[in-house]
This record gives sequence, C-alpha cells and structure tokens, in this order.
Amino acid sequence: MRVDGRKNDQNRHIKITRNYTKYAEGAVLIETGDTKVICTASIEDKVPPFLKGKGEGWITCEYNMIPRATQVRKVRDITRGKIDGRTMEIQRLIGRALRSIVDLKAIGEKTIWVDCDVIQADGGTRTASISGAFVALVDAVNKLHKQSPFSIYPIRDFVSAVSVGIVDNVKMLDLCYEEDSKAKVDMNVVMTDSGEFVEIQGTGEQSPFSRADLNELIALAEKGAKHMIQVQKDSLKMDSLWVGTGDR
Amino acid sequence: MRVDGRKNDQNRHIKITRNYTKYAEGAVLIETGDTKVICTASIEDKVPPFLKGKGEGWITCEYNMIPRATQVRKVRDITRGKIDGRTMEIQRLIGRALRSIVDLKAIGEKTIWVDCDVIQADGGTRTASISGAFVALVDAVNKLHKQSPFSIYPIRDFVSAVSVGIVDNVKMLDLCYEEDSKAKVDMNVVMTDSGEFVEIQGTGEQSPFSRADLNELIALAEKGAKHMIQVQKDSLKMDSLWVGTGDR
Amino acid sequence: MRVDGRKNDQNRHIKITRNYTKYAEGAVLIETGDTKVICTASIEDKVPPFLKGKGEGWITCEYNMIPRATQVRKVRDITRGKIDGRTMEIQRLIGRALRSIVDLKAIGEKTIWVDCDVIQADGGTRTASISGAFVALVDAVNKLHKQSPFSIYPIRDFVSAVSVGIVDNVKMLDLCYEEDSKAKVDMNVVMTDSGEFVEIQGTGEQSPFSRADLNELIALAEKGAKHMIQVQKDSLKMDSLWVGTGDR
Amino acid sequence: MRVDGRKNDQNRHIKITRNYTKYAEGAVLIETGDTKVICTASIEDKVPPFLKGKGEGWITCEYNMIPRATQVRKVRDITRGKIDGRTMEIQRLIGRALRSIVDLKAIGEKTIWVDCDVIQADGGTRTASISGAFVALVDAVNKLHKQSPFSIYPIRDFVSAVSVGIVDNVKMLDLCYEEDSKAKVDMNVVMTDSGEFVEIQGTGEQSPFSRADLNELIALAEKGAKHMIQVQKDSLKMDSLWVGTGDR
Amino acid sequence: MRVDGRKNDQNRHIKITRNYTKYAEGAVLIETGDTKVICTASIEDKVPPFLKGKGEGWITCEYNMIPRATQVRKVRDITRGKIDGRTMEIQRLIGRALRSIVDLKAIGEKTIWVDCDVIQADGGTRTASISGAFVALVDAVNKLHKQSPFSIYPIRDFVSAVSVGIVDNVKMLDLCYEEDSKAKVDMNVVMTDSGEFVEIQGTGEQSPFSRADLNELIALAEKGAKHMIQVQKDSLKMDSLWVGTGDR
Amino acid sequence: MRVDGRKNDQNRHIKITRNYTKYAEGAVLIETGDTKVICTASIEDKVPPFLKGKGEGWITCEYNMIPRATQVRKVRDITRGKIDGRTMEIQRLIGRALRSIVDLKAIGEKTIWVDCDVIQADGGTRTASISGAFVALVDAVNKLHKQSPFSIYPIRDFVSAVSVGIVDNVKMLDLCYEEDSKAKVDMNVVMTDSGEFVEIQGTGEQSPFSRADLNELIALAEKGAKHMIQVQKDSLKMDSLWVGTGDR
Repeated sequence: MRVDGRKNDQNRHIKITRNYTKYAEGAVLIETGDTKVICTASIEDKVPPFLKGKGEGWITCEYNMIPRATQVRKVRDITRGKIDGRTMEIQRLIGRALRSIVDLKAIGEKTIWVDCDVIQADGGTRTASISGAFVALVDAVNKLHKQSPFSIYPIRDFVSAVSVGIVDNVKMLDLCYEEDSKAKVDMNVVMTDSGEFVEIQGTGEQSPFSRADLNELIALAEKGAKHMIQVQKDSLKMDSLWVGTGDR
Repeated sequence: MRVDGRKNDQNRHIKITRNYTKYAEGAVLIETGDTKVICTASIEDKVPPFLKGKGEGWITCEYNMIPRATQVRKVRDITRGKIDGRTMEIQRLIGRALRSIVDLKAIGEKTIWVDCDVIQADGGTRTASISGAFVALVDAVNKLHKQSPFSIYPIRDFVSAVSVGIVDNVKMLDLCYEEDSKAKVDMNVVMTDSGEFVEIQGTGEQSPFSRADLNELIALAEKGAKHMIQVQKDSLKMDSLWVGTGDR
Repeated sequence: MRVDGRKNDQNRHIKITRNYTKYAEGAVLIETGDTKVICTASIEDKVPPFLKGKGEGWITCEYNMIPRATQVRKVRDITRGKIDGRTMEIQRLIGRALRSIVDLKAIGEKTIWVDCDVIQADGGTRTASISGAFVALVDAVNKLHKQSPFSIYPIRDFVSAVSVGIVDNVKMLDLCYEEDSKAKVDMNVVMTDSGEFVEIQGTGEQSPFSRADLNELIALAEKGAKHMIQVQKDSLKMDSLWVGTGDR
Repeated sequence: MRVDGRKNDQNRHIKITRNYTKYAEGAVLIETGDTKVICTASIEDKVPPFLKGKGEGWITCEYNMIPRATQVRKVRDITRGKIDGRTMEIQRLIGRALRSIVDLKAIGEKTIWVDCDVIQADGGTRTASISGAFVALVDAVNKLHKQSPFSIYPIRDFVSAVSVGIVDNVKMLDLCYEEDSKAKVDMNVVMTDSGEFVEIQGTGEQSPFSRADLNELIALAEKGAKHMIQVQKDSLKMDSLWVGTGDR
Repeated sequence: MRVDGRKNDQNRHIKITRNYTKYAEGAVLIETGDTKVICTASIEDKVPPFLKGKGEGWITCEYNMIPRATQVRKVRDITRGKIDGRTMEIQRLIGRALRSIVDLKAIGEKTIWVDCDVIQADGGTRTASISGAFVALVDAVNKLHKQSPFSIYPIRDFVSAVSVGIVDNVKMLDLCYEEDSKAKVDMNVVMTDSGEFVEIQGTGEQSPFSRADLNELIALAEKGAKHMIQVQKDSLKMDSLWVGTGDR
Repeated sequence: MRVDGRKNDQNRHIKITRNYTKYAEGAVLIETGDTKVICTASIEDKVPPFLKGKGEGWITCEYNMIPRATQVRKVRDITRGKIDGRTMEIQRLIGRALRSIVDLKAIGEKTIWVDCDVIQADGGTRTASISGAFVALVDAVNKLHKQSPFSIYPIRDFVSAVSVGIVDNVKMLDLCYEEDSKAKVDMNVVMTDSGEFVEIQGTGEQSPFSRADLNELIALAEKGAKHMIQVQKDSLKMDSLWVGTGDR
C-alpha cells in the first residue's frame, strides 16, 4: 500500500486548467497530486541566430521553481549567480520532448517559448511540466492556426511523460516526493500517443537495475503515459490532432 | 469613467487566499483586479552575518515575475545574468515596508524570507505584494507563536500599500496597467492601520506635480490603503493584532 | 543645535566646480559640506535599441563610489559580481530626475551618459549627484548647442534635490552622515525651479510618520531645493535657461 | 558497412594509458577511435558542506573540452560566462555513474574530484569519459589503499559506458561523430561488470522509437559495455576488484 | 621637441596632495601632467585565507578609472560583467611593486588595501598609481605606527615608477597619451631609492627592440624614477624611512 | 648543480609534436621538460568589431590549464565565475608576442584564435605556450597559404620565449617549478630570430635586482631563446620563413 493509498500502477489525480493566465498564447496549470506547474507557451516572430533564414521554427523551454515550492526554501538562481544543473537538465529534456512531436518547418520562422514554473513540488515536476506544456503548446499553435492557417498542421502527435521507480523493492508509477526520496531506481519516460518513446532516462545511482527490472518499469510507464494522454485529450476536447490544411 | 468602470477613488476587487501552497509557513495568493501575486513567508533559524550574535531577527524580501506574467514575455533574470533595477527597487521597498511594523528584537535570531512571485501583472504589483506579504507574514509569525509564544508579539501594526496617479489630468486610485502606462505622475504609498506613512514614492518623470496635486494624491491613497487593511483583517479574521504574551 | 552648528532649515555649504576634468562634455565637482561627487555628462551619437529610429534621445545615469569614499572601505561592485540594490535605486532616481526636465525629442538620436562618482560621502550623495549632474548636463547641452544650435532648446527647467529627515524628533534639512545614520524618517525631494516636484521618496523604516510630519518636511525641502537652484544659477552664470532657437 | 569499416555491433579501437600526467592520484588518457579524453582523479581531504560530519565521502565530476577538440572552435565557458547545458548534463551523468559503484561510507570524509577534459571529440565523449574516469578512480583509490588500507575496499564493481543509436534505420554500437550527427535515436548506457544498468538515457528527438527498437539497442549496448570492461581490466591488470581488507 | 615642449629625458610636472579625502588612513591625489589618480590605503584587521595564522600581513591593490577619465567614455566593469585584462594586469603590477618594499611579517596579520582610482587619464596612469600609492601607504603605516609602534618599521625602501618609450624613433621619458598612442616600444619601470629594479615590463608589439635600445630606455627610466622619489620625499617631508623601533 | 642536473645556462629538453590533434588548422604539443602544452591555431573568417571593414586581421590568444595540470587541483575559472588575473596576464602576453611578428594587413579580415591548454605544468608554461603557439600559427598560416597564396607572406620572423631567474643567488635559464617557486627574481623574455626583444617582463617581488643582474639575465635569455628557435626550425623543417608571394 502506497503512502497516499494508491495502487502501484496508478497515476495520481491529474487536473489541467487551460487559460490559467490571460496574456500567454497558451497558459495551463497542471496538477498531478500536490505537484502544481504553470506552463505557458509564448510565440515570438523570430528564431535564434543558428536558424535565421532557414525557414524553420524553434521551440525552447525554461523551467524554474518559485523558492518555496519545496519543503526547504530554495535560493533563487539569480542569487546563486547560475542555473543549477538539475534545472538545466530538466529544461533541456522538456524542449526535446516537445520538439520531437512538432514539425518545425511547418511552423515557419517563429520561436515558441515554453515556460514551466513550479509553484508546488511534490515529486514528478519534470514529467508534469512536459505533459502540461504540451497542452499549452497546442493552445498556442491553435491560436496561430485560427489567425492564419498553417498549410501543414505542425503538431504530429500527443506527447506526455510519467515517472516510474523502484521503492523498497516495489516498482511504482508516478512517484510522489516521499516515494521519490527513497527510490533506488528512478526513471522518466516520455511517450507519444502512437505508443513510441521520445525519451527514456533511468538511473540507478543508489543501486543498479537488471534487464528484467527495466522491462517492468517500461510497462508501468506505458500505462501511466497513456492515461496522461487521455487526460490531455479530455482537457483539449480533442480526440486526435488536426490533420492537413487547417480545416477545423 | 475609468477603463474598467470604477470610480476614481475606488480600489479594484481584492481577494486574498491564505494557505495557497502547502510548504511555506505563510502562503498567500493576493489578487487585485487581474494582478495576481503569490506571497510566501519562510522562517529560517539564522540571521545574516551583520546581525549575528545581536539577538535580533531580520526580514528580507525577493520579488520576481514569471516570464509570461506580462503582455510581452520578460526574459528571466538568470538569462540576462543580473537582476534588473526595477526588481531590485521593488524588493527593497517591500522589505522596508514589512520591517517597519515588526519588532525585530522580539523575533530573536531568525530570518523571515518573504517571496513575492507575480503570476499575472496588470498594474500595482508592488503594492499588491506588500499587502499580500503582510498577511503571509502574520500567518508565519502566528505559526511560530503557537509553537512557542513570543514574550512580546512581534508585529506592531497592520501595513498595506496602494498606488495612485494622475492619468489624463485626473487623479485616480489603484491604477491598472492600461492607466499606469499613460500616467504622468505615479505614486506608491505604504501605510499602517494607525494612519501613518511608512513610505511615499512619487515620481513625475513625465511631468512634475504641484503641492496641491501631492495633497490630493495622498488623500486618495489614505482611502485606498484603509480599504486594503480592512480586507486583510477580514482575511485574517483578526480585528487587531495580538497584544502581549501570546494569550490567544 | 546640529552637529556642525547649522540651523535646522539650513543647507550645508555648496561649491560647484565646472570643467573639473578635461575630456567630458560636462564635468562638475559638486561639494555639499564634506560630500564630494564628480558628475560628468558624455554625449554619444546613438540611442539604446528601444529608441532606435524614433527620432528621440535618451539620458541614462550611473552612480558609484570609490571604495574609500566611506568610513569603512566598500567592496567594489565588480568584486562582489553585482551592483548593489542601493546603487541601482540611486542611479535610476538620478536618471528620472534629469529626464523629467529635458525634451528628449529636441535632443534627437543621442544618448547623454551621466556619471556620478562619489569621492567622499558624508550624507546626501544622491541629492548632490542630481544637483551636480544637472550643471554638467547644461554644460554638455550648451557645447552641442554652440556647435549646431537645437531648433528647440532641450532643457526645460532647472532641477535640484535635497534630503530632509527627522532626527531625534527634530525635522532637519540636508542631513550629514552623522545625522542621517540616526534619522527615523528620511526623505529625498527633487524639485524644479518652477516649484514643482519631480520626485518625493520618503521612508520611515524606523518609525512611520504622520501627515503633519510630511507637510513640514516638504516645506523644508522646498526651501533647500530653492537654495540649491540659486547656487546652480550662480555657477552657470545663467538666470534662466535659453529659450527658443539658440540665440545666445 | 559503416563509415570506418566497422560492423554494426563493433566498438571502435580502445586504448587506455594510465599515469598519463604526473601530479594526479589517477591520470588516464582514454582513446576510443579518434575521441581522446584525459581523465584525472584527485583526492581532497574534505567533503562538501552537505556531508560534513557524516563520515561519508563524495565523488564529483567536471567535464570540459579544449576549444579546438571539435571541428568548429567552441567558445570557452568562461567567455560565455556560463556552463552550457550539455556540459552540465554530462558531468552530472559521469558523477552518478561513478558514485553508483563506490561505497561512499568506506571512503570516509574525502572528496574525489574527477576531471574529464576532452582533447579530441569524435563522438562518444561522455561514454569514453565514464569508462576512462573509472580507471583513474581505481588508480587513485588504490594509491590511498596502499598508504593506509581501507577496512572495506570502496569500489564495488567495474563500470563502463557506451553509446548506441539508429542511423539510417540501422542500429549501431559506439557511434563516431559522423554517425552521431545523422542518428535519429541516440542512447547512452552505463553498465556494471555484473551486467546491471546504472543509467540509460535514450532520446528520439528526431523520431520516436518503439519498444522493439529499445530492446535491440539495449542488447547492442550490453555487448559494447562488456567489451569496454574487458579493456579496463586488461589496462588495470586486474580481473576483479579487491575484496575485503586490503590484502593485495 | 615633444608635444608639450618637454625634453626627452624630462618628467612631466608632478604634484602630490596628501590627505586628499578624509576617511582613508592614507589618501593621496597624484598628478603627473594631466593624469590624476586618487590613491588610498586602507587598513583592515584581517588577512586573506591563505595567510591566516601565519603572523604575516598582506597588501593588495585595485585600480579603476571613472568612466570619463578618458577621451571616449569607458563602460564600467560591472556593466560588462568582468574586469578587463588591462585593469587586472595593472592592479597586479601595483600590488607587486608595493609588496616588494614592505616587510609583510613586520606588519602582522593586517591587510592594506590600496585603491587607485584614475579621475583623468593622460598616459602613465599605472606608474602614477604606483608612485602615489607609495605615499598613501607610508601615511597609513605611519598612522598605525603612531598608535602602536611596530617593533620593526615595515617599509624598507622608497619605490616609484615611470614609463619610457620609443616614439618616432626617439626615446622618451614619461609619455603622455598622445605620445603613448604612437609609441612602437613602451616600457614601465619600477625602482627603489637604492637604485634597484622591482619590475621591468617592456613591450615592442608594434616593433621589436634591440639590446642597445633596452639599455638606453633603462637609463632614461632610472633618471625619471629618481626624480619621482625626490618628489615623494618632499611631499612626505622625509629624507629617509624610519629605521628601527618607532623612535620618531 | 640544478635539481635536474642541468647547467645554469641550459634549456630543458624540448619536444614539439605537430598535428597533435586533427581538427585545428595548426595543432602542436610542446614539451619543455615536464611542462606540456597543447597549442592550437584556428582560423575564423571574420574580425572583432573594432577592426570590421579595415582590411586587417587579428590574432587573439586564450590560455588555460586543465585542473590537475598542477600539484594541487586548480578550480576551473567557470566555477570561480571569473578568469584569474594570472591567466589574463598570460594570454595577453602570448597575444602580443604573436602579433608582433605577423603582418596583420597581409592576413586580411580573418581572426586567428590561438589556444594554449596546459596539460602538465612544471614551470615556464607561458614561455612554452608562446614557443609552441608560434609553430601552430605557422602551420595554420601555411595551410591558408597553400589553399590561396597571400600576396605578402604574413609572418615576418620567428618568435620564441624563455624564462630566466635568480635562485639562491644563482642566475639560471628555463626554471622548472621547483626552481621557480624559490626564485627571488623571475623574468620572461620573448625574442625574435633576428635577435630583438618583443617583450621583457622581469619582477623582483621578493627582492629587487641591480642593473648588472639585469644584464646577466638578458644574456642567459638570449641564449635560451636562440636554442628554442632552432628547435622550432627543426620541427617545421624550415630554415627561414617564406618570403614574397607564396612561391613554396
């Protein structure tokens, strides 16, 4: 029995609030249990220097926590003078996850800035960020699409993420902070609606894991990611992504 | 008639949600119209070096906005590599406002970290921050007081803040962003429940103002600050601050 | 009786030395009592990005102290790796004060860099900086005006600044360091020759102040700012600013 | 047929030179094909603040490239003013890999600094770094062990790493730069001699991958990591790690 | 004939004003021609970590220019985010020059901070800084000596510095900016009163120089440094340094 | 007798390995005794802003050590957040040394980036860097020259550098670390093949030196630099530099 009464293969309760703030093109509050992340997608009409003139767009992500999102107050990056490694790692992961399901050529020379700001952290903030950011991204792209339809709709697939891990020798889905802090093995999995993997990051710093463990963890993650995609679909009121030339 | 239908001497609607997040000793969401700020107060059992061994406490404040709190996405401080001057100015102001009504000796060798993170900015974020942070501060101090009563209750008075300004030659209370961006004169006033001033910052960069203007603006501010303190009292369910030795 | 024998409504002795250094377009040493600030105004033939192509100029200010301007040596900003908040606050104040009396359109696409470097700090460095920088600014603008007359003379009014405060319950004008360090209330006032306010910054961090206190402090400040403007006029050998098309 | 004539399941030629420089407790040059990394392990007699007094040691890693390790000169971190995200990610990975096979309590209050400096980068620098750093770590630990034997020998297992990926729909082991730059899927796998996984990081930013792909890639990685461990053993002239109380 | 009418072996006019500011233990304004530098020496009762507990003192130097000390306004270090290389080089040079004539053991566990802030730069600022800083150092040390005599007087010798160079194939002493900017060879020489060299830094970036050139330049420098020391002596009203046990 | 058995006027063994890495246009490993530096020269087809449009090229140098090049591990610059002064001084010296023998107009609008990365430091790293960087520079320039001959061959002369010093009252050439750490006087000399001086930097921080000392040290340096140039010639298999229009 888990600390919050869940079954081992059960996600926490997920709640996605769209249009959470009023200025961003896409603005989502995602809650998975007590983890809460504001995800916004902002469109900018230019691309970073390395893409200038190539007719392609870009998606970049920044992740942060407000100082008291955590049990102990975390010093702000600007006070320490540098981004910490964990933050860097997470924002790179979110960026890759979103770019993997977007046709950057179809977007044209635009940058989509995705900001994930954690206001309460109870485990799984990086996977919640990916899952919530996807919804904000869809809202932002659809806003553009309504103003001036893309000839190819740029989002190719849904994407979501979940964590899995081994805690006290038990494999579990969607770890809360208390579980995460005791986990020997910890894995984050990013998947598409078509059932493929975008990213697998598993680490057994406390204790290495076997091929059999890997297989079981992957199976748990598949279940959890699928559930998350269903919640995304419900929230967006979309069963599938727009196909073809902006006919919606 | 103002853009949002208010009278010139009318505050926007104020909403204060206490216990907005679960980890901080005090955690408030304050909304004044569409401006939304998360204010947390965190207690740390040590003081900065300049106070070590003096038996006194300290209150320090940090202020920030999430990137898309504003119409145009604001680059994060850590990306620019430095805190911008406006942020610095604001967080120093909030710190002074809160310290002015706290007996730092009564607190003992503790630091209270106040964090104001703006999630939506529609004018008046610094005054909303002060007003919300005060409530978070009271919650944090009362939590300490319940665990181990202070011999002298350290908060001496309520404190709140409002903005006033001159827009199209009309003096107005509590400017929203659209008004603020056209204001020739802009003033932030911090007041106590006893009707005294903690801080007055008025600037007529666009056009200087007369002594008569000053008097009228101050009168408007007094009205607005008084209203804000009533909302704080309602939210805290306290008519006055605790006096004496933790008898509540 | 004050520490230096002055009356409560009396400025310290003011001395303004023009052309203090040889390279800057305007270069002033201002001394108010033992406070000494070098103020230079430098003209640059371009504007910051946000003004490019708008046909307008800009005035920006930087303020600093040499390390041993103060009783205890102050670590240089570059050693600490960041500008401290007080410096940021002051340079923003000086910039607003000077821009308030300049017609930036009349200047055209130029930036005037104003640098205030304190070489001895005995209280009131920010107000001395504003008052001295104004004279440097006039010299720099007049140098341009002689080379190629402006169609509209860009300086609209004189501007000066003074500090006032409450020390041991006595209201005083132009506080020296010893007074300032004991002041319960501290106010900086920036005024024009036409008797209007550009900026009022009053703070009662140690103890809030009443409306009556405010009125008395403002009256003291008016007297002090007026005196400072007379000294500026004497130094510049100008009773009024040039009007119209560079006929001087 | 691969660009360098290898079979798909074949590692590049590996060469490990121990005692490559004279000051470090462990100093290795590892070459995998044209990738060359200097790995040093340095012992320091103290631990970071978060471990002080706990009787445990720490292993931390830094990774860098000399500017012309790559085809295009890479600007130094200190010139850009910050560590780039890729570097941060890699050095955190190396640290986790090494800590996973070390008994930090057995080390006592010491820090082992592992530095991986790439002098030529032809793909797979992070996996070469892990594999080479392990050998440097063993040399450093053995040097300590000879001076004063550990009661428990602190290294529990061999650890090595390899990359695998999908290039032109072909799954391949140990990608060189030319292959890596075309790979749709890219995976780094860290394994122990006992055949368990310490870390799996697979990303399909260019195109997601299936469960079957994952299985095949893992199998390739197992083969490659095993070969690398054999080379480490040959280089160290050790078939197994010391067990028990320093009897060697 | 030189631009300012001097002979090739002639120093510019030197003026040393002691007690130039009121807070520092030693505070000198040195003027060599139009070059003006404020040099202060500040005593701190502790030493840097690398000297703690060794019973020795330290002298460290910082050098800076106010932005408009030069013809073109120089951006402040803190705005650029780093000290520029030239500044670093100069402050290290000044520090070495002063430490070379001081008995750091005799000082005890104190740090002397020497600050050289250039307010007008017309060539030779680094040599003027050394020469002026020496006088400030003597004043600071003597102030300490009067309060509590050193058992060994810590300053062993006078030290001064001059520049020499080759301009239009002519060897010259004490170059002003106009000469310096045309010089093919540029040399700074630091000497003691006993006629020995503390530092020689000669560079022929524009054109290498011969052994004969070197000899002539050194001879010019000896003449110039000797003159500077005489001016230091006159200013300090000391013919020689105190010897022995604080008997003055 | 010296610590390594050399005569006082004898260089350590010098070994220059060209084409040490495969990507840079010039890539040299220079070894002088146990000091080892990788020197690369990289060509970039643009110049820094201050040279844009002037038809001239530029040579800039960066110097660094890997952390364990030294006896005690040196913290990386990026961790400390700034380049240390010694590094800055050295890279400026190397840059000046190389620019002194290059015709920057002949190069055209190109920048040559010279990187000196020390992998083992046993004294004399800055002089080894200059000597090795020269060979890398020649290789890079010749590579350009073969692709498209310069109308004027841009390298005018050979340049090399050596250190000399006074250790235990004995004057010595090419100090190793053990000697260097005891030296009272330390001098670095940069010379051309034509026997002229590009740079002389001598410092007697521990104890000033006389004119006679200077002469003896210079003579030792001339001998050492000459030997180094012979080794450079042997390594490059060139007795003299190409003259005229790329006829080789």
